[in-house]
Formats: sequence, structure tokens, C-alpha cells
Amino acid sequence: MNQKAFQDFYPDELSHCYGCGRLNKHGLQIKSYWDGEETVTLFQPRANHIGIDGYVYGGLIASIIDCHCIGTAAAAAYKSENRNMDTDPPLRFVTASLHVDYLRPTPIGVSLEIRGKVQEIKNRKVIVSATLLAEGEVCARGQVIAVQMPKNMMPVIR
Amino acid sequence: MNQKAFQDFYPDELSHCYGCGRLNKHGLQIKSYWDGEETVTLFQPRANHIGIDGYVYGGLIASIIDCHCIGTAAAAAYKSENRNMDTDPPLRFVTASLHVDYLRPTPIGVSLEIRGKVQEIKNRKVIVSATLLAEGEVCARGQVIAVQMPKNMMPVIR
Repeated sequence: MNQKAFQDFYPDELSHCYGCGRLNKHGLQIKSYWDGEETVTLFQPRANHIGIDGYVYGGLIASIIDCHCIGTAAAAAYKSENRNMDTDPPLRFVTASLHVDYLRPTPIGVSLEIRGKVQEIKNRKVIVSATLLAEGEVCARGQVIAVQMPKNMMPVIR
Repeated sequence: MNQKAFQDFYPDELSHCYGCGRLNKHGLQIKSYWDGEETVTLFQPRANHIGIDGYVYGGLIASIIDCHCIGTAAAAAYKSENRNMDTDPPLRFVTASLHVDYLRPTPIGVSLEIRGKVQEIKNRKVIVSATLLAEGEVCARGQVIAVQMPKNMMPVIR
């Protein structure tokens, strides 16, 4: 994909997230993109990211869905303001709630595709749904209620 | 705590979970115990387990709640059958759904306490709620619907 990922637009001081921060070298560093009206990320879990042998750990699935939906919320908020993601002030979201339904065991060892869809944008809140696929089969569905990060969470710039 | 953790009763072939498997050396290895009618785990996130600087990553919170509730489901299922956790056949649960409400930012650098409570046991399903506290304040609440692991997920013994 030639586009820049949503997470690559996050300012440095907001790019340390374990799930998607490009500056968290121990983290998952997921990358999310527009794909038409939906958003997509591809992620290959590590061999030790298992729950039961052979299957991906549910907590990891929740983590990828969380960060992909938060990235989608940010991208959608810029879009709704007709702004590019490299313009100020930055719009960064945090998770108010996360729900995941595990529909079938997710096989380990293959690339996972997570697709996001904006359900609602209202003031500082964005609701995003997600579908996780492995080898073309839907293995999990999720929903995140994302809210704009409160100002008092803003880190002091290092 | 002098008790053996729920997860330490899981058979070896079911002890590779990234969140709670005692044999997953890269994982979180959470340990859950009875505390009266409730269950408890204490967990100290690593410095890189952050979402925004200063605050614990939501995906990690979801992961700990997931594994603690799954452990609680197993312990409760044995208890409902008046069996010790070291008796056969093993009762191992997987996650059907996971819900987390993030009530306030969870500070990094302190030990987190996650308390579980069985809401319902019915046939192969156990519903467990969880409360996550940091420095005595409730930061998140969760709920897991746990179901007994289907036989076809059972790994071949290595």
C-alpha cells in the first residue's frame, strides 16, 4: 500500500502505544489504511501469540481491533472536518469501550485482515465496528466506542 | 498467596496462552486465585505497555481481564462439580465474547488488581464480570462469556 498509515500521522508524543505506536519498539505497530469507505489493517501474529496451541490469543485479537478502530476513528474525524491528517490540531482518540465476539478459533501462522467501518460520528465520539478475517473466513467481530483524548492526558513533550 | 493459581492447574498442553500460560515464556503469565467468593489477580504492566504516555494500554487491560475471567470460569466450573482443579477431565474454557468499559485512564507503574465475580454458570457456559483497580480506584470494568473449549481445539500432546 502506497498510502501513509493513519498511525504514521500521530504526533511523536502520541506514538508510544503498545498496539500501534510507531515509536514503541516492543509493540505490535499495526498500520491502518483507507480501503474505499472501509479501513483495513493486515497483521501477522507472532508464533507465541497463541491462546490454545494453533490458535491466536483472544487478547491479541482484542488489541488489534482496539487500535485499528481507534485509528479509524481518528481518520474518520479528520475526514468529517475535510482535513488532512497532517494538519493541526491533531485528533487522537482513546477507547471508551471495546466489545469482541469470537465466532470461531482464529488460526495462527497466517496474516489476519481486520476491516473497520464507521457506524457513527457525533461530537467527540466515533463508533467503529470491525471484522477480523483469517484465510477469508470471519473469525471475530468487534465494536469500539472511541472518544477524543481528554486534554489532561496529553503527555509533556519529551 | 499460598494457594496454587488456577492457571497452574491447566495441563501442560493447554498452558501456552500468551496471557496466562505458565509455559509461554514471552507471555504475561497472569495468576488468578480465589479470594472468598471473588477471584483476584495482581499484575504489574511493563513500562512499554502504554497507550498514551503514563497510562496502561487498553489492549493489555482487555487481555488481563480476558485471561482472569477465563481462569475464574474454570475454577468456578470445578467448584460447581465439587471437584479439585487437579482432577480429570480438565475443564478449560475459551472466550466467546469480551466486553470492557474504560472508565478512567489506568496509571502505568503501579500494580493492577483485577477482581472477578461469577455471574452465571449454565451447562458449558460461565459468565464472569471483572473490575480493574489501580491504587484503589476502579479504572475499568469487563465481562467475559466463557465456554468450555470444544474438543476439536484440543492440541495433540507434544
